[in-house]
Amino acid sequence: MLGALAMGAVASAQTWIWYPGDYEIWLGNKMNNNRTERGAFFPPFWKSDSHYVTVEFSKQIDLAEPEEIEIYAEGKYNVKFDGKLRFGMPSRFTLPAGKHNLNIKVWNQATPPAIYVKGKTVNTDSTWRVTYEDKEWIDESGKASDTSATIYADAGYWNFNDPATPPSEFSLNLEPMGYVSVEDKTADGGRLYDFGKETFGRIVLKNTVGNGVVNIYYGESPEEALDMEYCETLDKIRFSDGEVTDLATNAVSAKSGDYTLDNTKAFRYVYVAPEAGVTVGDVGMLYEYAPVEYRGSFRCSDSELNKIWDIGAYTMHLTTREFFIDGIKRDRWVWSGDAVQSYLMNYYLFFDSPAVKRTTRLLRGKDPVTAHINTILDYTFYWFIGIYDYYLYTGDKAFVKEIYPRMQSMMDYVLSRTNKDGMVEGLTGDWVFVDWADFPMSKQGALSFEQILLCKSLETMKLCAEVVGDNKDGEKYGRLEASLRAKLLPTFWDEKRQALVHNVENGRQSDQINKFANMFAINLGFFDQAMTDSVMKHVMLNPEVPAITTPYMRFYELESLCAQGMQETVLKEMKDYWGGMLREGATSFWEKYNPEDKGTQHLAMYGRPYGKSLCHAWGASPIYLIGKYYLGVKPVKEGYREFSITPVLGGLKWMEGTVPTPNGEISLFVDRDKVKVRATEGEGYLYLKSKSVPKSSYGKFEKTGDHSYRLWIDTKDEINIKYKQI
Amino acid sequence: MLGALAMGAVASAQTWIWYPGDYEIWLGNKMNNNRTERGAFFPPFWKSDSHYVTVEFSKQIDLAEPEEIEIYAEGKYNVKFDGKLRFGMPSRFTLPAGKHNLNIKVWNQATPPAIYVKGKTVNTDSTWRVTYEDKEWIDESGKASDTSATIYADAGYWNFNDPATPPSEFSLNLEPMGYVSVEDKTADGGRLYDFGKETFGRIVLKNTVGNGVVNIYYGESPEEALDMEYCETLDKIRFSDGEVTDLATNAVSAKSGDYTLDNTKAFRYVYVAPEAGVTVGDVGMLYEYAPVEYRGSFRCSDSELNKIWDIGAYTMHLTTREFFIDGIKRDRWVWSGDAVQSYLMNYYLFFDSPAVKRTTRLLRGKDPVTAHINTILDYTFYWFIGIYDYYLYTGDKAFVKEIYPRMQSMMDYVLSRTNKDGMVEGLTGDWVFVDWADFPMSKQGALSFEQILLCKSLETMKLCAEVVGDNKDGEKYGRLEASLRAKLLPTFWDEKRQALVHNVENGRQSDQINKFANMFAINLGFFDQAMTDSVMKHVMLNPEVPAITTPYMRFYELESLCAQGMQETVLKEMKDYWGGMLREGATSFWEKYNPEDKGTQHLAMYGRPYGKSLCHAWGASPIYLIGKYYLGVKPVKEGYREFSITPVLGGLKWMEGTVPTPNGEISLFVDRDKVKVRATEGEGYLYLKSKSVPKSSYGKFEKTGDHSYRLWIDTKDEINIKYKQI
Repeated sequence: MLGALAMGAVASAQTWIWYPGDYEIWLGNKMNNNRTERGAFFPPFWKSDSHYVTVEFSKQIDLAEPEEIEIYAEGKYNVKFDGKLRFGMPSRFTLPAGKHNLNIKVWNQATPPAIYVKGKTVNTDSTWRVTYEDKEWIDESGKASDTSATIYADAGYWNFNDPATPPSEFSLNLEPMGYVSVEDKTADGGRLYDFGKETFGRIVLKNTVGNGVVNIYYGESPEEALDMEYCETLDKIRFSDGEVTDLATNAVSAKSGDYTLDNTKAFRYVYVAPEAGVTVGDVGMLYEYAPVEYRGSFRCSDSELNKIWDIGAYTMHLTTREFFIDGIKRDRWVWSGDAVQSYLMNYYLFFDSPAVKRTTRLLRGKDPVTAHINTILDYTFYWFIGIYDYYLYTGDKAFVKEIYPRMQSMMDYVLSRTNKDGMVEGLTGDWVFVDWADFPMSKQGALSFEQILLCKSLETMKLCAEVVGDNKDGEKYGRLEASLRAKLLPTFWDEKRQALVHNVENGRQSDQINKFANMFAINLGFFDQAMTDSVMKHVMLNPEVPAITTPYMRFYELESLCAQGMQETVLKEMKDYWGGMLREGATSFWEKYNPEDKGTQHLAMYGRPYGKSLCHAWGASPIYLIGKYYLGVKPVKEGYREFSITPVLGGLKWMEGTVPTPNGEISLFVDRDKVKVRATEGEGYLYLKSKSVPKSSYGKFEKTGDHSYRLWIDTKDEINIKYKQI
Repeated sequence: MLGALAMGAVASAQTWIWYPGDYEIWLGNKMNNNRTERGAFFPPFWKSDSHYVTVEFSKQIDLAEPEEIEIYAEGKYNVKFDGKLRFGMPSRFTLPAGKHNLNIKVWNQATPPAIYVKGKTVNTDSTWRVTYEDKEWIDESGKASDTSATIYADAGYWNFNDPATPPSEFSLNLEPMGYVSVEDKTADGGRLYDFGKETFGRIVLKNTVGNGVVNIYYGESPEEALDMEYCETLDKIRFSDGEVTDLATNAVSAKSGDYTLDNTKAFRYVYVAPEAGVTVGDVGMLYEYAPVEYRGSFRCSDSELNKIWDIGAYTMHLTTREFFIDGIKRDRWVWSGDAVQSYLMNYYLFFDSPAVKRTTRLLRGKDPVTAHINTILDYTFYWFIGIYDYYLYTGDKAFVKEIYPRMQSMMDYVLSRTNKDGMVEGLTGDWVFVDWADFPMSKQGALSFEQILLCKSLETMKLCAEVVGDNKDGEKYGRLEASLRAKLLPTFWDEKRQALVHNVENGRQSDQINKFANMFAINLGFFDQAMTDSVMKHVMLNPEVPAITTPYMRFYELESLCAQGMQETVLKEMKDYWGGMLREGATSFWEKYNPEDKGTQHLAMYGRPYGKSLCHAWGASPIYLIGKYYLGVKPVKEGYREFSITPVLGGLKWMEGTVPTPNGEISLFVDRDKVKVRATEGEGYLYLKSKSVPKSSYGKFEKTGDHSYRLWIDTKDEINIKYKQI
């Protein structure tokens, strides 16, 4: 569902509402706590917040005629009408005509307080106000207090539009799936099931007979599933006809027959190994997924690139769940650095704005801030940048307004930990991450990479302050940004090596040069063109600078090349790197891929033979690169109010695709002598390089430079263009 | 149970543990949300906090031999031994000999994560460490992070020493009680039941026959119970043989027969009015109470004062529950201004330190601070002062250490809202309370009363900083206290009227003079003796200064008279004022009592005919006054390390009583020519006024002034003294 559409829709249809952000925090705890490591529960190591347990919902109503409402609530509640409490917990209530105040206050420790009101015109939606502290005291005479002190927010909501499906009962979709092949591994019933591709869900054990423990070992690879000592995830189910307390194996107890596991796991392979005394008839699974719509599409003349796009989209689908998660096998957590890339890929695939909002809310949690987001310094900054991107792609001012106070307290935390130069360094409790790298990288002192992210975060604060009309703080953030920006080159620029050095410690530039800060400086516009060109040569394309081996940072690396018009190079890189994973048999993209690795080396990470995730959202970056730099579609003004379309074939014979916008789409077909384009939302320029002036069925191209032309598009109809590729 | 004893006990016996303060917040929400107003749920209007949902418990162990432990948990949990997670949720686990790290991490949204570990030597107790954010990340090689960044606290606990009774199942004691008389009020079965005195519990409807709604109206007076339109609390139960949805009355559904109400109510009288079609055979109740021990006692030659003490003790017992609450009928909430008095009375009655700690934790809640405690400016200050008193009476350094960080953030909030003179004024959202008064009282500008409380709060911060060894901030608080103290007289002292004026607005002293600030200045030592004498004359004993009509502020008023040696006057006042309530038929003491009121005027408050609470903790102040100023026992050094005993008969022929100390007691018998005294804990002076040198069976009296003597007591044996009352 689209953010803007959803918000429009809510004004006319009732939906469950809650305190904004609280539902996400609750649902996020539930999801993050599904991680297991070899059968042990593995919760996050950062602070898990919780919902406000008592929330008041209020609405001023003005009715032409009396109206009966139905009231549903998750929690113990009261109803106050024009300041007077009603007996009990009324589920129906007739509102008289005229102007009145309706207040419903709900307490719920276990799940977020939520209500659903259904009437002819009075319905719960985002126009209701909510507070966790109504300050409605009375004085000795019984006079109610002035409640102007109460801080209200607009109610939070998602898509729970049915009173019978309250928010606390949310679940993803389930669908039965079967394996594609099975192999007997032992004489006594151990079997390896192959589900044909990376997948996610609950295993079903069918027709189980006898008494004893059935061991289930999961693998993203056959090696992992068959390695009972080192596979990352496993389950033990003790089947019997009665109740059994199984202190020895600590297995879950089940009755013989069919049994569906409670918990979900990621796998392609499952090794089911029953103990003597118990047999398993057959194995199945319930595939669990989010019902997202594939709104973006891509096809081109290169079938390998098509495969890369498809596997990227599937990787994104598997990791787009209650929230955008990192990967499905191991953490299954929301990580800010991973999420900010999922958001960008999402804008070119699902354009699921609610998923971005949910993830942003969960990552931030609540005040007080006691650590960086996910405890990682850089991840705090990606969180800010994700909001910048969200606003640019969706134009959703309401969300900026909602999240701005928590942006402020997060930035207060950051600014309370800067050094005397206004720069951030890793302090006690800060994880300075940057990337998983195979080369030495200092985490000491001020890293150029972190300062660039901080600078962009301050710019985000400035932008959002403008959106919400907070001029005073907007100016402050602008001043801090300008001050830090002015210090970046004097502090980190190495004129001789034409690069930003990695860090400065005790006032001295280090010798380390790598691509991280340099590519972010290019992508975020910190260099002028001459410097950019020089950095491209001396860093980005310099084989002596250490190579990046995670798709995570390849995302930004390849973006910086694309932004410099190097689509042909990047196309080759994509075919090499992502194509390389496909040639290794990948059915989803990986957490890390080093082409130098061989065989089972590809499975290892964190000192564990199967520690690596083989389905990791940050592996799917071609989705973003193709949409933004080949189809060439991006927003210029917030929410695609203005777009730009700069198709670049980059060596392809032809390509076609669709890029979703908040309430429409931009579709393209491009080959070497024609372009078909249709934009159902917004207006903007189409940029083309052509040997001669392109001819358009609508409007007229203007020349902007050597072989450079542009066409202003302000129609929703398809436009046919003839041109000559250079 | 005694604070210090409990803490000692825990080190040797296993008990359920949790994150400190979290259990109280959870239990407090449960209790505070039992308030109803005419059948509607009535939650607090301030922010309700919640527990940390994921908590890690850890313990370093060092075993001479292997040991099996049993593990119990409230929540989903894991067990990590020497950094390695164990499969599943093991309930038994054998620890090898040697030094090891044991970590248990628990997630629970609905109730506080808690564990209970039982072994031969390894047991959960307050020596375990807890954190809500363990920051135990790993790097690419699998190396665990340096966890020195993790902020640990000592585990919280109470008295849940049995694995079978986890903290979330806490309930107060229940005991069946019957009414003492019943009166038929209508031909169709309406009956008024009188339980003989103010009480609290659940009504039981017995032998109910037929179909229809039984209405239950509660009253602290017969007038209230019989006033179906205005009684403060009521219940409706629909009896039937099947399931009935009762949209019209919104009544609770029940099956015919015996029925015990889910919810507790306060009452002496209950009017049970069944609709036609249903009859109630009989009515009973389950009395709900905290199993506190009456460790303090008092008897004297005046039977009315004995009655006052007894009714005061009963009032305290009814309001000492999960926490110290204000009153049992209406709010049933924890209010800081009420609690700080309950604490003081408690030290002379139950000496239930855990109850003080629980209440202090609940009142404070969690960061961020978004409002004053209970939203009331003065109540924030009482919260600090309550900790000062707690430390003085108990000497419990461990609690000061636990609560100090939350004291600091609370004080940060206060200091962020002071004016340019460092004084507090009521800002938007602050309820400036002071007292329910029948005379006009400004709440504008800087009130002298509030500045005195702030000054004492800063002194508390200074003291607690010393206790925890925070010299830096201790100095800051001391400086702020001294600076504010120096401004008090120049700002508020009216030389002509020899009084502190009530407030200063726009730099000008107002004309209002009342007793509030003046009596606090006396009690807290803000005046020298000459000024005190003058203020006694010009304010405290001046009939033109408006009278105080709440027991709440009479507490401090009478304390100021006692502190000036006016026990005879105060004895008369107690007999007048509290005796006055008894003569009006009180079986517990009231929220407010104006001797000028007549008949049902005594029941009204807040513009409602039965709005007043007839059982209010702050009504019980004679318990405190008698213990501290007649028996004359108080701590001089923290935890009664040194005490002072200054018996004053105040017109009584004789008195005897016991004052509890943390781990002992001080008992006294005093008449006009002898004193028997025994102190089983601490040492200190007994002060006596006598016409001649008192003679003691132990030690020797020294003369300290005209007819003034003192005796150093450092024996646990009874001492017999002969003296001659002046």
